[in-house]
Amino acid sequence: MIIVLKPIHQEEDLHRIVRKLEDLGLCAHISKGEHRTIIGAIGDERVLRDVPLESMPGVESVLPILKPYKLVSREFQPEGTVIGANGRSIGGRQIQVFAGPCAVESREVLEEIAETLSPLGVQFLRGGAFKPRTSPYSFQGWGEKALKFLAGVRERTGMLVVTELMDPRDTVLICKYADIVQIGTRNMQNFRLLTEVGNIDKPVILKRGMCATIKEFLMSAEYILAQGNDRVILCERGIRTFETETRNTLDISAVPLLKQLTHLPVIVDPSHAVGRADLVPAVSKAAIAAGADGLLVEVHVRPEEAMSDGPQSLRPEAFAAMMEECRRVAEAVGRTL
Amino acid sequence: MIIVLKPIHQEEDLHRIVRKLEDLGLCAHISKGEHRTIIGAIGDERVLRDVPLESMPGVESVLPILKPYKLVSREFQPEGTVIGANGRSIGGRQIQVFAGPCAVESREVLEEIAETLSPLGVQFLRGGAFKPRTSPYSFQGWGEKALKFLAGVRERTGMLVVTELMDPRDTVLICKYADIVQIGTRNMQNFRLLTEVGNIDKPVILKRGMCATIKEFLMSAEYILAQGNDRVILCERGIRTFETETRNTLDISAVPLLKQLTHLPVIVDPSHAVGRADLVPAVSKAAIAAGADGLLVEVHVRPEEAMSDGPQSLRPEAFAAMMEECRRVAEAVGRTL
Amino acid sequence: MIIVLKPIHQEEDLHRIVRKLEDLGLCAHISKGEHRTIIGAIGDERVLRDVPLESMPGVESVLPILKPYKLVSREFQPEGTVIGANGRSIGGRQIQVFAGPCAVESREVLEEIAETLSPLGVQFLRGGAFKPRTSPYSFQGWGEKALKFLAGVRERTGMLVVTELMDPRDTVLICKYADIVQIGTRNMQNFRLLTEVGNIDKPVILKRGMCATIKEFLMSAEYILAQGNDRVILCERGIRTFETETRNTLDISAVPLLKQLTHLPVIVDPSHAVGRADLVPAVSKAAIAAGADGLLVEVHVRPEEAMSDGPQSLRPEAFAAMMEECRRVAEAVGRTL
Amino acid sequence: MIIVLKPIHQEEDLHRIVRKLEDLGLCAHISKGEHRTIIGAIGDERVLRDVPLESMPGVESVLPILKPYKLVSREFQPEGTVIGANGRSIGGRQIQVFAGPCAVESREVLEEIAETLSPLGVQFLRGGAFKPRTSPYSFQGWGEKALKFLAGVRERTGMLVVTELMDPRDTVLICKYADIVQIGTRNMQNFRLLTEVGNIDKPVILKRGMCATIKEFLMSAEYILAQGNDRVILCERGIRTFETETRNTLDISAVPLLKQLTHLPVIVDPSHAVGRADLVPAVSKAAIAAGADGLLVEVHVRPEEAMSDGPQSLRPEAFAAMMEECRRVAEAVGRTL
Repeated sequence: MIIVLKPIHQEEDLHRIVRKLEDLGLCAHISKGEHRTIIGAIGDERVLRDVPLESMPGVESVLPILKPYKLVSREFQPEGTVIGANGRSIGGRQIQVFAGPCAVESREVLEEIAETLSPLGVQFLRGGAFKPRTSPYSFQGWGEKALKFLAGVRERTGMLVVTELMDPRDTVLICKYADIVQIGTRNMQNFRLLTEVGNIDKPVILKRGMCATIKEFLMSAEYILAQGNDRVILCERGIRTFETETRNTLDISAVPLLKQLTHLPVIVDPSHAVGRADLVPAVSKAAIAAGADGLLVEVHVRPEEAMSDGPQSLRPEAFAAMMEECRRVAEAVGRTL
Repeated sequence: MIIVLKPIHQEEDLHRIVRKLEDLGLCAHISKGEHRTIIGAIGDERVLRDVPLESMPGVESVLPILKPYKLVSREFQPEGTVIGANGRSIGGRQIQVFAGPCAVESREVLEEIAETLSPLGVQFLRGGAFKPRTSPYSFQGWGEKALKFLAGVRERTGMLVVTELMDPRDTVLICKYADIVQIGTRNMQNFRLLTEVGNIDKPVILKRGMCATIKEFLMSAEYILAQGNDRVILCERGIRTFETETRNTLDISAVPLLKQLTHLPVIVDPSHAVGRADLVPAVSKAAIAAGADGLLVEVHVRPEEAMSDGPQSLRPEAFAAMMEECRRVAEAVGRTL
Repeated sequence: MIIVLKPIHQEEDLHRIVRKLEDLGLCAHISKGEHRTIIGAIGDERVLRDVPLESMPGVESVLPILKPYKLVSREFQPEGTVIGANGRSIGGRQIQVFAGPCAVESREVLEEIAETLSPLGVQFLRGGAFKPRTSPYSFQGWGEKALKFLAGVRERTGMLVVTELMDPRDTVLICKYADIVQIGTRNMQNFRLLTEVGNIDKPVILKRGMCATIKEFLMSAEYILAQGNDRVILCERGIRTFETETRNTLDISAVPLLKQLTHLPVIVDPSHAVGRADLVPAVSKAAIAAGADGLLVEVHVRPEEAMSDGPQSLRPEAFAAMMEECRRVAEAVGRTL
Repeated sequence: MIIVLKPIHQEEDLHRIVRKLEDLGLCAHISKGEHRTIIGAIGDERVLRDVPLESMPGVESVLPILKPYKLVSREFQPEGTVIGANGRSIGGRQIQVFAGPCAVESREVLEEIAETLSPLGVQFLRGGAFKPRTSPYSFQGWGEKALKFLAGVRERTGMLVVTELMDPRDTVLICKYADIVQIGTRNMQNFRLLTEVGNIDKPVILKRGMCATIKEFLMSAEYILAQGNDRVILCERGIRTFETETRNTLDISAVPLLKQLTHLPVIVDPSHAVGRADLVPAVSKAAIAAGADGLLVEVHVRPEEAMSDGPQSLRPEAFAAMMEECRRVAEAVGRTL
């Protein structure tokens, strides 16, 4: 941590800060320059996170040197984490695809969708059981009934179940049926929910908040690891920008950047990123080329009847064609799909 | 709802859409122009919210005409709502100030702060009992103990208590102590939590999500009203932009815009908006001049020791001076403070 | 400048950086901490602006300590600059209003507008002569003819003329007629144009780019001052954000922030910020309450016939009412209008 | 164009709008619904672009149906444009790479760089001759001298020259040396400059403004085509967002979206998008996978000595490795490189 003093400050201000640092077990290293005096706090600056040094008299600004997260960082664990989920693995050479409808609408439709996915090699079925949405007047999901449908499909096809947890009161219920628990974009900083999934024995897909910085995203993952669950999969799903032609803007450089900063696997959700089925294949290929470990894709047999997110859902034929194209790109970057 | 067809489409596509609209009880009104054919859906287009018309063959785009919210709109209720809270009112001629520390740290510090606020006419004391923060390693709040300290101060000073609800499991506990329940910016779209506060008998301060549009903000308020609680106070607290000199960017025009679109009271949180105590007074005056019904301000006796948000907390003297300046601006726009 | 080294680096990397700093006349101050080694560059770090230290082996990151601008900073000149323009002054106790149509459309309409402004005490008439706009098929302005109309109005009313320069080839022409030259938001980083107005003997209104940070805005002002013209008026006019209900988002905290960072006067353009006439009065009052030294407002006698920016232009009656309200707010903050 | 009337409006308001539309040669098509009356303007709505219908009494909002651009649209020209430049073509099956330093620093360094690029099959050399930058105190480019160095390299290697035009007064000079003229991101809406390059007989690379929407980007291209120059290459180079880890955020979905909306070739500048050399290869592969027709990359033999943009410049070895990886991805999507 570097503390920059104001051009005009009292000697006493300087001493007060030095004492504060020393009280916290840090060494203070003072440099008096022509224009500014700066104090370097030497030691583990994480003890300073909660100390509002900016409010001390004489301080102009405070610059952190170390990253605020630790357990998730590559520095802490240089080799990449490969996450196991009932026999499948995420983060290895194989790129995994998590596909299915936004919401589970009925047993029939779910099975119809699953039957198109399974032959294509998709190993993870996604589908929402609880779907409280922007409007209080929209369909809100079938709850446990939906979870049972998902489990039924797993029984028949062997595909693993990925579904979202939205309320700490549902943790036990969701864990009863899901193989992987998803934390949605609107809950990336719902710290109570992060604590919950930090204490379960299931892998967690953590979606980036739509206006979360990379640093905040990693801090939310750190929350989960700090509780003891180290099976976290990061999911880039587009950030909110001024552009309105697409639902969000996929931050493609987040993929290589996250792979550099953290050892956790990184997947991409092209469907929510663009919000339009026609752009999903191109963006999926880009995600793989950039180094993503997986794709989370919305697929529906009849998007025009979908109860949620129809416009961004791919039809099975389009999805099958996309899988083929993605496979070629995966090979070009030394992966399999 | 206006449905725009692609320049090249089948007659059958047009008929399919018309049948769909008629099935939903709407009338279809077709205009064939030189460049495009458009279909107007006449009736209450809210029945179309969940119908993915964009996915139907031949459709180029879909343009909504009506606003997606209803109960919160000025059209639905032209006169402004004045919200009563144990004898005080929010949304009337008087501008209300909600002040206090970010987090309740100890009984002593809370009382010290309250003693500087009460003589200035502040009628609402704010303070967080549950403070899960960005870092899992930071102070997380004192929970019920903090709520008791707040209630103790109410006892002695008569100031009403405003505190945040973060977890549906705490609803009963929070309601036992709070006069007004706050929903934080990170929970603006936590629909389960919105449903909870829609069912309590307390006013709710709903803070705008840091990347929520005005439309989404109003939809979240609609969620609460749709459950039966119509005592919602909207709080603009800055949105996330590319600018990094301030913590967020206060969307000042949101104040008059919300006053135009909705009958609910609108307050402003200058502290989180700018994140720096030195800019809070200017921004508070601006909020009042723009028509805000109240201010939510962080005040601390010793910001340099605050366990949360020190850099943006005003010292009591600065706050007292600001109150005086705000009073003059309030009078200039025909209000009292 | 603080140079942070990677956790793993060579001794030679450190020495190479030290030598580089010394070659540039700076002192290097090394702190070896537990987690990182950092080098402080002592001296005027501005000599390092163009040195890509981030590319040197072993460097993790580079943190500037000093601000990149100098002439425009409060540190360089503590007292506020009051800019004189043919007998009027900007930046003093009096708040100035610059009003008029977006584009000069005809002599008659311009005179009609001016006749409504002059009796209200408006001392500066704004109007565009060159108006190349987003669409190549829109009205592009009348050029010199418009400048003559503006000068004619000055003759009759005494109002000074403010108009925009868009092309370095028009500098002489614009200066022949204008009292104050405006640089538009799209040209805030047109460095050739900034150099041009840095060499003229007229005050310059520099509008903030719609996605320019405060730092970039001040660097553009520095460009002008560095050429020798120190009569620069900064104009906050809204930044681009994700919100679509308003044309831009007025960054209200930029007003007190700029007043703190620079000695230059700061005015606000509420018309472009919100893009809707109905929100202009509330936002104008907010700007004055926040400390703005002036307002740049679009006024038109018949907005429904305006050739440019009609929807955001105030009618004369609305403008007169707004002036009255703004006057009361100005008095409340110790200014006149 | 759809004109939505306010719930409460006068019959006369409706008639006034209908008359206005008819005066402009359009037909008015009125639909009276339960909640709103809407008027459809049938005919070429582009005649309405400059008519501020929003300001007419009784109007609530105005929704355009047609896109504001024409010549650049796929609707206007369904087949993709392949642009010829002295024997090379852009927009065909072959992906083109435009590489070189940000600024031309000296003949020696330029030649050194070019000698590493030419053997890799790079056919276009980029380099800035005029480099006015954010700071008035930074290196500003060598002007014509730099252009001569570029031409010298063309002579020796056969690589074509791409360089930026920043000032309309330099048009003739730039055209004397350049094979392709570049319009930079800060000038995307410098309409005078667009008019200039609309009148030259050279291909133009138009870079997207850092906060320009796709629609604005295409309107700027339309500006150039409207003057008669239809050899425009669009370049996505990252947009400004709240994320600060990268210089900008590459809008990867802009690539397939632009390919859908326009017939013009689309290239990507990964260097400015991310601002860090280490992320450039991953993002370049993503761009190709997404369908880009080319890459604009900064390469420097000694980035740590570069006079501009060092941190984002690739060293020749890294660039050679990246070319090899990109080639494999290009083949996976059916292209060559």
